[in-house]
Order: sequence, then C-alpha cells, then structure tokens
Amino acid sequence: MENLSCNKSFGGWNKQYSHHSQTLNCTMRFAIYLPPQASTGQKVPALYWLSGLTCTDENFMHKAGAQRIAAELGMAIIAPDTSPRGDEVADADGYDLGKGAGFYVNATQAPWNAHYQMYDYVLNELPALVESMFPVNDQRAIAGHSMGGHGALVLALRNPQRFASVSAFSPISNPVNCPWGKKALGAYLGKDTASWADYDASLLMHQASDFVPALVDQGEADDFLAEQLKPDTLGAAARHSGYPLQLNRHEGYDHSYYFIASFIEQHLRFHAAHLGLQP
Amino acid sequence: MENLSCNKSFGGWNKQYSHHSQTLNCTMRFAIYLPPQASTGQKVPALYWLSGLTCTDENFMHKAGAQRIAAELGMAIIAPDTSPRGDEVADADGYDLGKGAGFYVNATQAPWNAHYQMYDYVLNELPALVESMFPVNDQRAIAGHSMGGHGALVLALRNPQRFASVSAFSPISNPVNCPWGKKALGAYLGKDTASWADYDASLLMHQASDFVPALVDQGEADDFLAEQLKPDTLGAAARHSGYPLQLNRHEGYDHSYYFIASFIEQHLRFHAAHLGLQP
Repeated sequence: MENLSCNKSFGGWNKQYSHHSQTLNCTMRFAIYLPPQASTGQKVPALYWLSGLTCTDENFMHKAGAQRIAAELGMAIIAPDTSPRGDEVADADGYDLGKGAGFYVNATQAPWNAHYQMYDYVLNELPALVESMFPVNDQRAIAGHSMGGHGALVLALRNPQRFASVSAFSPISNPVNCPWGKKALGAYLGKDTASWADYDASLLMHQASDFVPALVDQGEADDFLAEQLKPDTLGAAARHSGYPLQLNRHEGYDHSYYFIASFIEQHLRFHAAHLGLQP
Repeated sequence: MENLSCNKSFGGWNKQYSHHSQTLNCTMRFAIYLPPQASTGQKVPALYWLSGLTCTDENFMHKAGAQRIAAELGMAIIAPDTSPRGDEVADADGYDLGKGAGFYVNATQAPWNAHYQMYDYVLNELPALVESMFPVNDQRAIAGHSMGGHGALVLALRNPQRFASVSAFSPISNPVNCPWGKKALGAYLGKDTASWADYDASLLMHQASDFVPALVDQGEADDFLAEQLKPDTLGAAARHSGYPLQLNRHEGYDHSYYFIASFIEQHLRFHAAHLGLQP
C-alpha cells in the first residue's frame, strides 16, 4: 500500500492510498479521512462513501464538506473509487458503463468479469484492509450518491449484519427499471434479468425482513429524478415491508454536490447515532 | 450577462455568469453565492474572494464549504476568475504567469497590458456590476488564497475606504522578494522595481496609516512558506505601522483547500462582524 497524499483537515488527516486489489485484479486508489480522535490511540467507526458516475475517490472529499462534522463526531470516512482502473481494465464509450461506472456489482459477463467485482471489493476487501492498517474499527455505516446511493442501499440491504446504518443522496433506486440500470446490469450481469434483482434496492427493500436504519434525501429539481432515480418506488417498497426508511424531498435542489454539501451534516449525525457516537 | 449555472446550496443559490469586461477587454466568468436572505428583498453585504494560481471562479465555491456559513450569516460571496481569458489573451508557459496567474495587477507592459487589468476589474468593474444586478449592497469585504491573498491584501491596503475587512490564507506577502512575485511583477510591470511596491502587501502595510481590520492564516507545513509566502515580513510590517493584523499559524496544515476549508468559518465570522452582521 502506497501513500499518495496527506493533508491536514479539521485537525485530522485526509489521505489517499493506492494498493493492489486481489478482488479487482488491478491497482486501486482510495481516500480516507481520519478524525483527530484516531490520533489518540482509539479506534473509530467508519462511514464508507460510494460516489456516483464519473467520480473517483476525490469528489466527495473535495466537495461535500464532510470532514468538519466527521472531526467533531470522531468518525472516519473511506471513499473508494467507482470502478476498477488501469489500461488492462475493460472500458466502454460513454460515462455510464465501464471505468467510473462500476455500479457496485460483481460482473458475471465477459469482458467485465475479469475486473468488475466492486460489490465484493467494497463489502470485504476494502474494509478488511482499512481495519488492518488504520485505527478504524468494524462499526460501519455506508452512504453514497446516485450510482453510489444505489450501491450503498444494495450493500446494506443484502448485508444488514455488516452495517449499522445506510444513507443515500439521489440514489438510483430501481435500476432494473431505468436506462442507466438496464444498460449497466445488462452488460455486467447479462440478459437474464432475474440476476439483476440482487442489485435493485427497491426489489430488495420490498422483501426485506432484517432492517438497517435508512435515510434518503432527494432533490426535487434533480434532472434525473423521474427517469433514472425513482425514489417513489423505493418509498413504496419500504411501506410494503415496514422498512425503517426516512425519505426526504427538497424543493429546488438538484443532482450536484451543492445538494450533498447542504445536507451531509444530517447524514453524518444520523450515522453517528447508529454507530454509538454522540450525534 | 449570461447565466451559466444555478445550483441551490444551503437554501441560497450558487450561480455562474459570463459577461464582457470593458476593463479586461474580454469575456469573463464569475461565481456568486446568494444566501437565503437575498431572496427576501433585502440587499446583503458581500465578500469578494480572490483565488490563487491555476484557479478559476469555481475552486472556492466547490471546495471551501463557505456557503454553509454565508447562508447563516446572510452574506453574498463573489468569486472572480484569476486572469483575463480567451484566445486573444496573451499567455506564457508555466502556471505562474499569464492565464490563471493575473496577480491582481494592472499590467503596464506589452503584451500583457492589453488585457491584464485585474486590479481595476476586481476593485471597480466587478463590484459595480454585482451591485447593479443582484441584491448585494456596497458593504464589501475581501479575502483570498495565495496569489489571491496577495490580491486581497493589496486591494484593501490601497483602498481602505472601500473594504470593511480583509483576510487571507497563505498570502504571497512580499512579492517583490519572492520568485513568483519577481517573475509576475517583472513581466506585468517591467524591470523598474519601484513600480512593484504598489503591489506588495508588506511594503504597503509597513507605511499604512489608514487601517482595515486584517486576518491572515498560514499553515506551518505549507511547501511555499519560506520561499514564496513570507508571512513574517508581513507581521513585521504590521508591528511597524501598528496595523490591526491578526496573523495565525497552524501546525501541520499545508497550502491546499483542506486548510482553507478548516478555517473558512472563522474568516466569514470575522468579516461578518465588520460588515455589521451578527457573527
């Protein structure tokens, strides 16, 4: 593991590392924010943040303003990249498939299955690495934006014992029924749509019986709201299963990091309460 | 004037505009954050933010996290670009001269003098435009980072009646004595170093008698500290003239926006107190 950058931030440290991922079979970069409390010998709980299409490990750390609150709460933040990377990794034209668009699935179809195993990477390899190398414990929350909101919800819904809480901004809530999801799941998982259901937050939430407290925020002025995101479908699934989902809509906010920055504090305090921190 | 973007942020609006600048003789872009209070019919005071080398109007708005505090205080923020722009504008190799490196001076030397008049643009044309087009009044503060910290200090020192307060992160405090300053001032103003003194915060502060409350923050782990920034020279100048300068040093912090984000709240509250807002 190689340290690529190190910047003091709100009394803690914002760092980037590269490492060889066995799961993804390539070199990956991730970012981690270690709050001041992590410098005192204690292990701190962690929020894993999954970014959206075209993003890297940097967007959230640069733009969300989350470090201020993480420093107050004593929470680490880990931001992986959004796909495998490198010259040997398959790619496609367009921003919504291939590099920068891993969709947090385990691909089964060639050529994608050689590297695109982001579900396993985020669920297993990355937390194991982080918890072995940093003063971070196994109290985990997970959150994300858009494609990353989809990833966070799917990971928490399928692994309720692994996450104390989950939240999302503007998630792709029903990918089996939207253009982004159909394109990506069709490529990564193949034409048999039965296999897609394992990666659809609305379908998973509809049938859930083991719950993770969930918070979703959605802007009403989001250009992708009706066609790609479909939060109403997620809300209906939660009502069906009795899922503890708090779904908030916000007039005037769009799909950008300006929206995320405006409400990230509430998300971190929500996770803090479920991670045993003083929110 | 053309509106290029509009994003809701902390209940207010973050917008970008392009306009033809008569002063710079080219099309310029700037960003403005209008807090929620500006939507109620009242005019709000404004902080003008000057960015550093290689930046545009976007860096501060994306990375500093200032909108949260501006929204609470009721303060507009205006971020101009860092140089004239366009194919017709002279440029140079390297990041520290030409486009992205206007140094907030009025160039006197060809080819620079055809467009590089950033001092007049920031002092006169931009505030006049903003105050005529937006609910922003003429209560102005000014701040900046690195090259922009230099620009903010120089503008306030030379125009104490125009600014209620001034602040800077990691400013180029004595450009007549550092490589960045010598290169830029030599190109824009010519070899006669006597003309450079009008753009040197330390020289101006040393002889100042009309004061603007000033706040400067400097990271101790800043790679540019000793060679380019020279805050001690500014501190000595303030002691000589009795200038009301608060100069803070911060262990471990570097030259990046992680540093700015960590302390921007104190800067906005400092300006608020001098702009007649409730800090």
